[in-house]
Parts: sequence; C-alpha cells; structure tokens
Amino acid sequence: MSRMNRWVLARRPYGEIQPGDLELIEEPIRDLGDGEVLIRTVYLSLDPTNRIWMSDQDQYMPPVQIGETMRGGGLGVVERSRSERFRQGDIVSPGLTGWSTHVIAHEKGVNPVPVIPGVPLTAYMSVLGATGLTAWFGMIDIAKPQSGETVVVSAAAGAVGSIAGQLAKRRGARVIGIAGGRAKCDWLTRELGFDGAIDYKSEEVGPALDRLCPNGIDVDFENVGGEIMEAVFSRLNTFGRMSLCGMISTYNQDPPIAGPRDFGRILMRRLMIKGFIIIDYLHRAPEAFAELGPLVASGELKWKAHVEDGLENALEALNRLFTGEHDGKLLVRVSPEP
Amino acid sequence: MSRMNRWVLARRPYGEIQPGDLELIEEPIRDLGDGEVLIRTVYLSLDPTNRIWMSDQDQYMPPVQIGETMRGGGLGVVERSRSERFRQGDIVSPGLTGWSTHVIAHEKGVNPVPVIPGVPLTAYMSVLGATGLTAWFGMIDIAKPQSGETVVVSAAAGAVGSIAGQLAKRRGARVIGIAGGRAKCDWLTRELGFDGAIDYKSEEVGPALDRLCPNGIDVDFENVGGEIMEAVFSRLNTFGRMSLCGMISTYNQDPPIAGPRDFGRILMRRLMIKGFIIIDYLHRAPEAFAELGPLVASGELKWKAHVEDGLENALEALNRLFTGEHDGKLLVRVSPEP
Repeated sequence: MSRMNRWVLARRPYGEIQPGDLELIEEPIRDLGDGEVLIRTVYLSLDPTNRIWMSDQDQYMPPVQIGETMRGGGLGVVERSRSERFRQGDIVSPGLTGWSTHVIAHEKGVNPVPVIPGVPLTAYMSVLGATGLTAWFGMIDIAKPQSGETVVVSAAAGAVGSIAGQLAKRRGARVIGIAGGRAKCDWLTRELGFDGAIDYKSEEVGPALDRLCPNGIDVDFENVGGEIMEAVFSRLNTFGRMSLCGMISTYNQDPPIAGPRDFGRILMRRLMIKGFIIIDYLHRAPEAFAELGPLVASGELKWKAHVEDGLENALEALNRLFTGEHDGKLLVRVSPEP
Repeated sequence: MSRMNRWVLARRPYGEIQPGDLELIEEPIRDLGDGEVLIRTVYLSLDPTNRIWMSDQDQYMPPVQIGETMRGGGLGVVERSRSERFRQGDIVSPGLTGWSTHVIAHEKGVNPVPVIPGVPLTAYMSVLGATGLTAWFGMIDIAKPQSGETVVVSAAAGAVGSIAGQLAKRRGARVIGIAGGRAKCDWLTRELGFDGAIDYKSEEVGPALDRLCPNGIDVDFENVGGEIMEAVFSRLNTFGRMSLCGMISTYNQDPPIAGPRDFGRILMRRLMIKGFIIIDYLHRAPEAFAELGPLVASGELKWKAHVEDGLENALEALNRLFTGEHDGKLLVRVSPEP
C-alpha cells in the first residue's frame, strides 16, 4: 500500500513560525470510495494568509485546528479515479488541498485546470489562479484606478502586487511600487513598466513618495500595513481609495493591529477603505480571467514563480514571504509535473 | 443708512469654543451693485462642522480666516434687489452666507427656495436642506442598508441621524440608535420607529449593542467617533459598512484622531469605510429630494428644529451641539419669518 506525507499544525506559532510548530507525518493512503479521486500534489501555493490560518485570531475562515493538515491551495494530477468525470493523468485543482503529497477528494470538489497551450502549469498557481484574481478584483473592482491617477502598490514585487500594478498601468494610471531591494525595484521599473519604485530597505518611504508622487496618491493597493501603509495613507488625495489586500508586516503580531494615525483624514479627504478576501469573488472569476488569460498567453502581463522543491521544505519556504527572500509567486513543487 | 451685524473669527478656539473666539461687529450696509441682492437672514444653520471650519486643521474646505465672517448656511428674504431674477420678499438661499444679519450676494450665487405649501421654512434648513441630503446620501448611497440588516446610528436623535435612521427603516433594516438621554431615546423608539435606542449617558454602549444587535451590525452610520465608534466598529459583521459622516466627539481635539483599535478587522471582515462631505453630492440633490420631499409633505418623515433667537446668541447656541442640549436641527432665527 502506498504512503503519503502531510504537515499538521502541532501548536500555534507565537510571532515568527518556529520548527516544531508544524509536524510532517507519514501515513498510508486509504482506498477510494465511489466518486473519489486520488490526486498527487504537484504544486502547493504558499501565501501570507497561511500565517493567519495558523493563528486563532478572529479571521475570515475557521483557523486550522491543532492536529489538522495545514491548509493550502494546490494543483495536482489524478493518480487513481473512481469518478466518471476524471481519469488518471488529468490536471486538476482540488481547491484548498492542504500541505500534503496526496489528497483524496470527491469529484464534486475537484475542478479541471483549463490549460492554455504554451502557458506553464505554475501560471495556474499564480497569475491565472487566486493570486491573479486577488490583483484583479482588488485593483479593478475595488480601487478603480482612472487614467492619470497616481497608484501606489506596496509589496509591489510580490505575486499579487506585481500584477495589480501592471493592471493599473493598463488603465492609464501612474504607478509607483514599494519593494524591498534594488533588484526588485529595477524589475518593477525596467520589466513591468512601473513609473517608479521605492526600496524601503534603503530609503525612507515618506520622502520618496513625496518625490515620486508630486500630485499626491489616489489609490493605495495595500499589502503591507504598519509604517508603510501609514506613509501612503497620509498622502491620499481627496476621493482616494485604499484597497486593503493584506497587512503582511503584522501577521507575526497579535491583534489588535493599529490603523492609520489620523482616522479623521478618511472624513476630510472623503476616502474609501475596503478590505477584501478573494474567496468572496470566486463566483466572478470569469470577469478577471477574460482579461488575464489573453494577457498571460501573449506575454504582455509579466509574472514570475519562485519554486522550492519538496513538501518537506514547505515550512522553511513559507518564512521567505516574511523576509522577502523570494522572487515571484512562492510555490512548492511537491512532485514532478506530469 | 441701515446697519448690519456679523460674527467674525477673532482667534482659533483651543478645545471648547470660548467667548471671545468670535466677535460680533456692527457696520453699515453698503449699496448694491448691478445684479446684486440684499438678503435679510431669517435662519442660520448651526452644524458640527462649524467647529472644524474655525480650526486650521487639514480639512475639506479652506478654514475660516481670522477676521473673516464666520461661515454658515442660511436662508433669508430679499430686502432690496438690483437683479432681474429676484424681487423684494422672495425667500432665497444664498448657500453659505455666514453668521450675519444681512448678506449682499450676486444673483448667480442665490437660489430661490422651492417652498412646498404646508411645509414650514425651517424644513429647508433641515430635512429639505443639507441635513436631509447628508442623511440620504450617507445612508442610501454609501451604506446601502438592505432589508433585514442591522443598522446602528450614532447621534441618532440629531438632525442627520434621526433622518438617516428613518430612511434605513424604510429600506426594511432593523435600526438601533445611540443618543444621550432617556427623552431622546424615547423619541427614537416611540415616534420615529427605531427598533431600539441606547442612552450612552446612562448605559455602557458595548453591552447594550450586544443585547440589541444579537446578529451583529451591518451598517454603522457614524456621527460621533471615539469610544462610541469603537463599540460599533468592533461589532461590524462580514461585509459591514461604515458611512463616516462625522466624529463630533473629536472636534474639540487636535488631530490626529484615533481610529478603531483593530484595523485588521477591515480585512478579516471585508469591511468598507467611506468618509463623505455633503458638498460632494449637491449636484445629485434631486435624487434625494425626490424621496424626501413627499415624505416631509405627508408627515411620514419626522423631524424637529430647535430654534434659538437672535444672531447675538449664535456662539452660545453652537456649543449645544457638543453638549447635546438641543432638540432637533439647531437653528438661529436671526430675524422674523416674512
């Protein structure tokens, strides 16, 4: 009988994730029931929100329970099937599979991946997956950048930020990115067409924003929180919008998470702040993919994946999100592509 | 030659407004130029935002300058006219007239008041003026209460809050008001049809909200800020909205004004916060008046005016907004109705 590995939450992390917070266990793979498929995980998505799921703070889904498989988005290949809908070799997404080499799922919870010729599988874990949807709905549906407006994206070289910024550029906005390190900033301005980039590791964000956004800021696509958010928020123009996608700088802290110092600015400048989670928009995914699909196929929209090999390395890899030591959408290749 | 009185800003108030911050001066009324009218002020509107205009904090209009006439909305009667459009006795609104017994305005800046038979003049300074528009756009256009949702209105017995709450009731929402004093709370529940009211002067707001909003809160129509806002915000449901109309509890403080303690809730609960100022919606006023006009004429929408007599009492009257010692839209009757 074949065996599988999966990571279970052993205890809730306090601050940064430590070895031992999750445990990798091995167990036999059970037999399939009617309508079930056995999926071998190929790619596992690592996302900032994983850290939230490990905590028991008030959040948008139930936290992962102690002893449960760590939650994560994945893509895999069908190895065995007792479903009429799927057969061996099919590339499928079971949604939130978990940090596991294999997953047994009922056909109802499994979706075929609509593979576009010439587009690598990693795209469906990134720009053509939840990452791209997050960028599209957060920027296009919530922030609504207009031609000539100034848009600032934090964590701009990240998987979501880099796409969000490019989408704003396509709407005619002036786009400034905030990222950590010269190489990331160069990528934004030279490859992605950003109008400017601020390396928060080597320059003060506030004065840099003053220099690069002489007409103030109309849109804050916010991924970071804390002092970087404060710097952008405090420069928002009248009718400015903050699309609150994430606050990664705070995820290793306990709530409550402080907001901008001057809440009165929301009133005086008639600002709009909206938080969002991509699961609320999945039913509208076709709207986003209608734009993203052709742009990815044509290569007009740039994106990168950072792939780490081996499920056993997932926990260490996740920490790269918080240190910035990754280059593109962070994925774990759990097993070879078919 | 006839004379007029007006209040000028003598110095910026620090904290609560003190006698001497404004000065009442008397001066001759000058002759009219072509196209000008002399308006005798009948009603002057006193609003929380007046206090903001007296300060030099970052705000949505230029602050009133030292030595300038204090800004205020008004309604009056034409006493003399060198305009083809207006004649003596016309009831007109010159917009932001100022705290003045008389105002000379060019016809371009003067609007006739569209008097509805049976509706008192005070209505045009309240429910059929900026107050009603503020309630309508803040509640209907921004907060968008749905049938069955729970709406909380702070300063609910105030001019704006009382109308906003009634509009939410008309959309089928469950409406809870927060007000200061038993009499105001009784008015909300017995006369206005609110589903519940919390007297913040005699009970703790948080536990009262828990009791009256067992399904949480979907809309916060926020007029107060500070601890009352915190109590409502921290109970906002997923997809909750805060229509930020004002933060009167903070207007005697210097900025920055603290926001909710847990900004992360905006993300986790996918909240929307929008600040607004009614001047941004004046071009859309007919949308609101289409609903408000008939409701006022029929008496279905309840409203009250609190009238203080005499321009010389305006400054003392304004302080009633901050102590709550008023009952309805606060107006000064500067001269008798025609």
